[in-house]
Amino acid sequence: MWLNPRNPQLNKNGELHHLLSLEGLPVEILRQILDTANSFVGVTQRDVKKVPLLRGKAVFNIFFEASTRTRTTFEIAAKRLSADVINLAINVSSTSKGESVLDTVANLSAMQADMFIVRHAASGAPHLIAKHVGPDIHVINAGDGRHSHPTQGLLDVFAIRHYKKDFTNLRVAIVGDILHSRVARSQIHALTTLGCPEIRVIGPRTLIPAEIRGLGVHVYHDMREGLKDVDVVSMLRLQNERMKGALLASGQEFYKYYGLNDEKLALAKPDAIVLHPGPMNRGVEIDSSVADGKQSVILPQVSFGIAIRMAVMSIVAGN
Amino acid sequence: MWLNPRNPQLNKNGELHHLLSLEGLPVEILRQILDTANSFVGVTQRDVKKVPLLRGKAVFNIFFEASTRTRTTFEIAAKRLSADVINLAINVSSTSKGESVLDTVANLSAMQADMFIVRHAASGAPHLIAKHVGPDIHVINAGDGRHSHPTQGLLDVFAIRHYKKDFTNLRVAIVGDILHSRVARSQIHALTTLGCPEIRVIGPRTLIPAEIRGLGVHVYHDMREGLKDVDVVSMLRLQNERMKGALLASGQEFYKYYGLNDEKLALAKPDAIVLHPGPMNRGVEIDSSVADGKQSVILPQVSFGIAIRMAVMSIVAGN
Amino acid sequence: MWLNPRNPQLNKNGELHHLLSLEGLPVEILRQILDTANSFVGVTQRDVKKVPLLRGKAVFNIFFEASTRTRTTFEIAAKRLSADVINLAINVSSTSKGESVLDTVANLSAMQADMFIVRHAASGAPHLIAKHVGPDIHVINAGDGRHSHPTQGLLDVFAIRHYKKDFTNLRVAIVGDILHSRVARSQIHALTTLGCPEIRVIGPRTLIPAEIRGLGVHVYHDMREGLKDVDVVSMLRLQNERMKGALLASGQEFYKYYGLNDEKLALAKPDAIVLHPGPMNRGVEIDSSVADGKQSVILPQVSFGIAIRMAVMSIVAGN
Repeated sequence: MWLNPRNPQLNKNGELHHLLSLEGLPVEILRQILDTANSFVGVTQRDVKKVPLLRGKAVFNIFFEASTRTRTTFEIAAKRLSADVINLAINVSSTSKGESVLDTVANLSAMQADMFIVRHAASGAPHLIAKHVGPDIHVINAGDGRHSHPTQGLLDVFAIRHYKKDFTNLRVAIVGDILHSRVARSQIHALTTLGCPEIRVIGPRTLIPAEIRGLGVHVYHDMREGLKDVDVVSMLRLQNERMKGALLASGQEFYKYYGLNDEKLALAKPDAIVLHPGPMNRGVEIDSSVADGKQSVILPQVSFGIAIRMAVMSIVAGN
Repeated sequence: MWLNPRNPQLNKNGELHHLLSLEGLPVEILRQILDTANSFVGVTQRDVKKVPLLRGKAVFNIFFEASTRTRTTFEIAAKRLSADVINLAINVSSTSKGESVLDTVANLSAMQADMFIVRHAASGAPHLIAKHVGPDIHVINAGDGRHSHPTQGLLDVFAIRHYKKDFTNLRVAIVGDILHSRVARSQIHALTTLGCPEIRVIGPRTLIPAEIRGLGVHVYHDMREGLKDVDVVSMLRLQNERMKGALLASGQEFYKYYGLNDEKLALAKPDAIVLHPGPMNRGVEIDSSVADGKQSVILPQVSFGIAIRMAVMSIVAGN
Repeated sequence: MWLNPRNPQLNKNGELHHLLSLEGLPVEILRQILDTANSFVGVTQRDVKKVPLLRGKAVFNIFFEASTRTRTTFEIAAKRLSADVINLAINVSSTSKGESVLDTVANLSAMQADMFIVRHAASGAPHLIAKHVGPDIHVINAGDGRHSHPTQGLLDVFAIRHYKKDFTNLRVAIVGDILHSRVARSQIHALTTLGCPEIRVIGPRTLIPAEIRGLGVHVYHDMREGLKDVDVVSMLRLQNERMKGALLASGQEFYKYYGLNDEKLALAKPDAIVLHPGPMNRGVEIDSSVADGKQSVILPQVSFGIAIRMAVMSIVAGN
């Protein structure tokens, strides 16, 4: 067995083999990813944006759930590492012929793939796939159900470190639909590992699961109270389907209580930064004056996301 | 401000920065594009069809409106310049999540794109995008609403120059649905700038807008009269939806009056050439014996289109 | 005329120019493909999986019928040969605008393509296209109607040769829906050419066409009888639409009589190998214990498929 039995994303030397979740990832590996990404920020701003680290490798974007944005960032990252990229939108193909996910993956493995970037609506799908691929294939979770979206969590903490330098005296508020958010979970795990002493989650009772307190976070239902003196405001995207569902009265109602506007942001520290994973619902979870304002680091997050994905891919390929 | 305030597609040195429209493009730049394209015609006929001019650059095909043909020609052109190409069919992605075009574009810019090839059903969308991207990003209009399709116009005048050498004593007829055609507008602007003394537009009253006379063209409703002694016959594609609509009786009716067949073509000069932007409706706007006949330059137009797109991309990237 | 009048897939020197069908392909060319593929098996297992044989060449995957799996294998094979690959799903594009297949192909040819990989629901479509392209373009059939799927047939005989070394004393059984299978036809032609002395086809009367006996095969309706002492069991995929149609009672009924399970497989030689083109319907035409068992070579078939496609592409491009 080539993987570490206690953590299926590490090899037996304790190095990153798959990236499935930020939960349980050792702090040294988190820092290795952030430091490596930092070295790639420069590459993506050069005139020739390519490095040959993955030349001749085949990276398969296997998206069982559509996500142009995430797929594109992985595709760009892989091409900047000189890999060959194969895009597969599996919902419209083999599985519609009745083939199981594992048969699909076994077939793609037999094509001598080097890396699978996997997005799936079912929580745990990337773990299942990682368990069944051969020792030469690396699996990177690009979002699975409500569970995890580790590269998003990594780019978020990269952005926080970039602007705040140190995690050990930060107060971070995560605001919105915690219940359905894989982004929130990934942020909480990464921030905790990196030593952030105070994480607050803010949202309506219907959108904050009870078990979240088990992760050591503080729960607020009053956004004004929760934002007081925080260094970082991490806004979550409100899925459209929630606005129509039983969990919320309406988008306008949500905006009134949990939308970030200038007035509420003024309660945070004056130099607080605002994060959002995108795409934004302007006027629902965030006001345009905040989204486009000087405390917003939403677009730099996107740039950092390329560097983070380059870092993860080059690290697993090198181990 | 890095752009020329009087012409938003030129930089302050008067060089091409974006290609949004052929309207107002100086004749020197038109000629620079045609001459550069001429040098690429050779490249595309070589055994190894690549030149390294855009190596390490990221070209994003952002198609808000589907067009396999146009997307493919830009993709081929970019790959022949050694660029990395990312294809995005935006109708099925972010905007369906409620993200605005400008947020989408801001996000793609943050991924350190170098060039956006934009196709959109709304006239002016590429101009709007060009206004909001950073100074390092070039925008090329690949067709916007009824407004413009500049690379198509350029490949048309390239074909005309290739076969007729000089514009200054040419008589050109543009035939068909002028009202809805971005191709017609682009051709008229380019031909006028290049010194073509006589442009005729031919079509039924319902498909020729009144304001077209303001561009200095002659309007004909009788195709036989309009084709008399012309050097170039530029046929337009009749959109299927027009044939079913209120503007036209039927495809057969249209063919009778405005379809190009051998008998009507005989009224033009004996060495007149026939253009069509494709895809053709054989038996509606053009007869197969003309489409496949010796005066047709419809397939060479396609080849020239690759060279023109290579020229435009390499010129803006070099400025 | 550059093609051999007696065999339209060979040039006048008798070399492979297009790959349209395995029917009538000389044994020397079949062996050339298998030997060349053998040399590529090593390449696809190396760290850098690329060879520069098709550098600067443009390979167009023209899929008039969706098939992610086949498209992906051709895309990977072309990229490993360093070609530029353009993917075109034509059902959603030009032909929906009313353009004919031949106009589409003429346009793509004018873009200076080097190779067309063609998949079409109509039998003979790749032959029609091959007849109309210029002398510099190679056409490879990636599956046409019920007619042919030559690279699948080639990878099947490659797998058989790999495990059985020699064809001249083999007994091969092909089982299932022979009527609708382009795979069966391709296998029969290739095996016959390579000297396989005994080919059996096994299936219900409704799914075995009468004319199949003309190919020199033995027909069995009793699977147990047909499998007796065979060296190779080639299972065919049962299309879902057949299970609902008039030709078959149900999937369960089919499984009972023609599904391959351990008990039926035991009637073959002890070292018999099991092939399946994928994707499998587990529990319909094949039992999981066989599919995942030690006699199954179904996943190696997929790997060999990449090598076979690299071989075919590099051979036609070199001739």
